[in-house]
Amino acid sequence: MQESHKRFFQNLLGKDNVFFDEIHKRAYSYDATKNHYLPDGVLFPRNENDVSEILKYCNKENIIIIPRGSGSGFTGGALAVNGGIVLSFEKHMNKILEIDLENLVAVVEPGVINAKLQKVLSEYNLFYPPDPASMDYSSIGGNVSENAGGMRAAKYGITKDYVMALRAVLPNGEVIRAGKKTIKDVAGYNLAGILIASEGSLAVLTQITLKLVALPKIKKTAMGIFDTIDDAMNAVYKTLAKGVTPVSMEFLDQLSIQALELKFNKGLPVDAGAILIADVDGNVEESVEADLKILQENFLDSKAREFKIAKDEQEAADIWFARRNCSQSVAMYGKLKLNEDITVPRAKLPELLKGISEISKKYDFKIPCFGHAGDGNVHTNVMVSDKNNSELVAKGYEAVEEIFKLTVSLGGTLSGEHGIGISKAPFMKLAFNEAEMELMRNIKKAFDPNNILNPFKMGL
Amino acid sequence: MQESHKRFFQNLLGKDNVFFDEIHKRAYSYDATKNHYLPDGVLFPRNENDVSEILKYCNKENIIIIPRGSGSGFTGGALAVNGGIVLSFEKHMNKILEIDLENLVAVVEPGVINAKLQKVLSEYNLFYPPDPASMDYSSIGGNVSENAGGMRAAKYGITKDYVMALRAVLPNGEVIRAGKKTIKDVAGYNLAGILIASEGSLAVLTQITLKLVALPKIKKTAMGIFDTIDDAMNAVYKTLAKGVTPVSMEFLDQLSIQALELKFNKGLPVDAGAILIADVDGNVEESVEADLKILQENFLDSKAREFKIAKDEQEAADIWFARRNCSQSVAMYGKLKLNEDITVPRAKLPELLKGISEISKKYDFKIPCFGHAGDGNVHTNVMVSDKNNSELVAKGYEAVEEIFKLTVSLGGTLSGEHGIGISKAPFMKLAFNEAEMELMRNIKKAFDPNNILNPFKMGL
Repeated sequence: MQESHKRFFQNLLGKDNVFFDEIHKRAYSYDATKNHYLPDGVLFPRNENDVSEILKYCNKENIIIIPRGSGSGFTGGALAVNGGIVLSFEKHMNKILEIDLENLVAVVEPGVINAKLQKVLSEYNLFYPPDPASMDYSSIGGNVSENAGGMRAAKYGITKDYVMALRAVLPNGEVIRAGKKTIKDVAGYNLAGILIASEGSLAVLTQITLKLVALPKIKKTAMGIFDTIDDAMNAVYKTLAKGVTPVSMEFLDQLSIQALELKFNKGLPVDAGAILIADVDGNVEESVEADLKILQENFLDSKAREFKIAKDEQEAADIWFARRNCSQSVAMYGKLKLNEDITVPRAKLPELLKGISEISKKYDFKIPCFGHAGDGNVHTNVMVSDKNNSELVAKGYEAVEEIFKLTVSLGGTLSGEHGIGISKAPFMKLAFNEAEMELMRNIKKAFDPNNILNPFKMGL
Repeated sequence: MQESHKRFFQNLLGKDNVFFDEIHKRAYSYDATKNHYLPDGVLFPRNENDVSEILKYCNKENIIIIPRGSGSGFTGGALAVNGGIVLSFEKHMNKILEIDLENLVAVVEPGVINAKLQKVLSEYNLFYPPDPASMDYSSIGGNVSENAGGMRAAKYGITKDYVMALRAVLPNGEVIRAGKKTIKDVAGYNLAGILIASEGSLAVLTQITLKLVALPKIKKTAMGIFDTIDDAMNAVYKTLAKGVTPVSMEFLDQLSIQALELKFNKGLPVDAGAILIADVDGNVEESVEADLKILQENFLDSKAREFKIAKDEQEAADIWFARRNCSQSVAMYGKLKLNEDITVPRAKLPELLKGISEISKKYDFKIPCFGHAGDGNVHTNVMVSDKNNSELVAKGYEAVEEIFKLTVSLGGTLSGEHGIGISKAPFMKLAFNEAEMELMRNIKKAFDPNNILNPFKMGL
C-alpha cells in the first residue's frame, strides 16, 4: 500500500480507524471457511460520508475494497483473495438507529449483530424473523449481503422478505436509496432486490430498514421418529401441502443421530432412520393445537414410529438439543468436513437424500445430512478422514460436485443460505448458463465499472 | 415497417400471428390511461423460442419491442410511445403449465389472467394472494412486470413476495432462468428480484413460478365508522402495531361516502369522516375471533362511533359493496379524474390525508381518497370539472405534483401499485436523485444495450 494512500485514509478517518499493521491484517484475513488471505489494510468508517469518501478515492486509485460484517460467512465472501482494503462496520457503524413501533420497522447500520437486534426487539414483543445459525455474531449487513436464511424460513421466509429499504454507497461514492418503509413501492427498478444477496460486490450498504413481526404468544415443539429418511421427508412436504407451516421443520438423519448419541448419550434412537423436529406458533391456543393435530396426522400417516409434543420449555429444549449439536457431533466422522447448504423443492427431498446415500457408497465417504427440511435446505457433510491426504481430499470434492449436480438436476440450488463467494464459484457453471453469467457480469459493471468492490467472487 | 421485417416475422410465426393492419394496430394502441399510441405491428409468439427469435432479430435491426399483457395498466407501461412492435401473450402464451400440489407452486405463462389462475387454484383450496383490482382481466406477466399489489397486501404482501422463479429472454435472444422452486436460493445475483417491477424494459418474461398459499377456512368482515379521517387512520396503524394483520384494511373518506350514497342510496352515514372495512382470516374460529376482538378494541379506542361484524356472507358483501364501487362513484365530482396510487408508511396516513385536504382547499379541487389503509396505499383522485379547460387541467396536475411532493416528504413513494410508465415519469425527479437515475439507466444498459425493450419508460 502506497504511503500516499495510507495518508489519505489517516487524514480522512483519523489514526484510530486506519490500520496497516500485521496484527490487524491477520485478524481480518479469515472467515468461517478457515481460509486466510491477508488484506492490505483495515478501515473502520464512522459514517456514510466516510464510506463515500473512501469509495470515491479507491475508485479513482483502483484500490480493491472488501466490505466485511463479522467474517462468519461459510463461502469466503469477505476474504481479500487478491488483497485490497477491508471495510469493517464493527467499530462504529453498528447502531440500531430506530425501532419504529407504529410502522413495525427497524432501521439499523450494517454492523448491528442479528442477536443484539433480536434482544432489543423482544423487549417490545417483536422479532425480526431471519435467524441464521450465526445470529449470535453475524451482522445484519452480512446477513443482507448473503441473503441469510435460518430455522424459521419455512414459515417466515428469509432476509430478502424483510428488507424494506437500503441506503448504499456506489463505488463512485454516490449515495443511493432503495425502497421505502412501505409494503408497496413500485417506483423505478427494485434496487433493493438486486443489492440483497450481492455479496458486497455492487455497493456498500450503510443503512438497512427491516420489517418486524409481533412475537407470537405461543410456541410448541413436536418431534417425530421415523424408520426411514424417506418416510420423514414425505411427512415434511405432506404436512406443508396441507396448509400447516411450522415455524421450523428440522431433520436429522441416522448418521447424525448416531453421532449425537455417541457424544452426548441422551437416549436417542440410534436405529431410527430420521428424526423430525417442528415448532408451531400462533397467538391462540386453539390455532396452535389445530396445527399440531394436522402435524401429528401427517407424521403418523407417513409411518412415524413415535410422535411427541413437548409438555414444557424444558422438554422443548431437550428436543432441540439434538438439532443444535448436530454440526459439532458429526465432526467425529472425519478430520475434514466438506459441508454444503444445497436446497431442493421440498417434495424432492426423498429423492435428494436417496441420491446422496448412493454417492456416499460410491465414494466411500460418510455423508451425514441434517437441516431445514421445511424449506428443502439440507446441510450435507462429506466427511474426509485425512485432510492431509490430497488424493482423498480431491475425491471428497468430487463427491461434493456430484451432490451439486444431483441437486441442480432436481430443480435445486447450489446454495440455500451460504452464498457462493469463492468456495462455490467453481460450481457456478453447473447451475448457470453462459448468458446468465454474462448478464451477472454486466450487472456488476453497471454498479462497479472499475471492479473495485469485492471482485473475484461468485465466479464472475 | 420495412417489407423485409414483415416477411421475417411472417415466416417465423405464420400469417395468423403477425399483424400490421390498422385494426390490430388500433386495438393494441391503448391501455387503462386512455392514451393512444399506434404501434407498427402486433406479434403473437407461440412459445419461448419464438420470443427468442423475435428479440434476436429486433436487437440486430434496432426494432423496438413492447411486451404487453392485457393493457390494463394505469401508467402507460404497455404503450408504444415511439412506435415499435407489440408482443402480445394473449393468444398463445396464456397457459397454466403446472399446479405443483406437493411444493405449493404454480408455473404459468405470462398471458395467464390472474382471476383464471385463482379459479383453478380454488378447486385445490389454494390461492395466489396478489389480487389487483384488475385481476379479472390483467395477466400474471403484467402483474409481475408492474409488481402488482391489491386488497390483501396488508397481510399477504405483493407480487414480488410470490415470484419464486422466472424464465425470460434477453434482448439478444438468450434465455435466462432466475430463481428456483425453493424458498431459499442465494446462488448468484437476485435476477428475479430486478426483473419484477421492471415494466418489461429489461427482458421478456416467458415463464413464471409462483408461490401458493392454502385458502384459510374462515374469513370475517368488520366495519368501523369514524367521525374524522384522522381517527380512522390512527385506528389502522394502532391495530397493525398490536400484531393483528387483517387481510385487508380499506378506507373510504367522507367525499367517497357521500358520492356512494348519492349514487346508490344504501344508507351510508354521509356525515361520517371515514369508514374502515377489514377482513380477518384464519383456519380456526378462536383465532379469527381473537383478531376481531383486538380490531374492535383498537377501533373503539380510536373513537369509532360504530363497529360492526358482518353476520353472514350477505352482510359482508353489503359492506364491501361500498368499497368496490368507490372508484366509479367519485367520478361524479368531475369530468377528469387524476387518480394516483401514492403510498406512505402506515403511521403517516393521518398526516398525508390532512395535507391532501389542504391541497384540495388551496387548488379548489375535490380530492376524494380511498384505498388500502393497511399498507399505507391511498388512491387519491384530483377531480377536474372541465377536461377541455386546459388551464384547469394544468392546475389539476399542479395539485397532483404537490401531492407527490407531500408523499415523498413523508417517506412515501410515487407509486404503490401502478408503476411509473409514462404517466409518472415526469415526477421521478421528485423521488430519485441523479445517481439513482443514472444507476437505473446503467442497469437498463446491462440488460438491453441497444435500448429496444420498452424504451422511454420510467423516466430513464
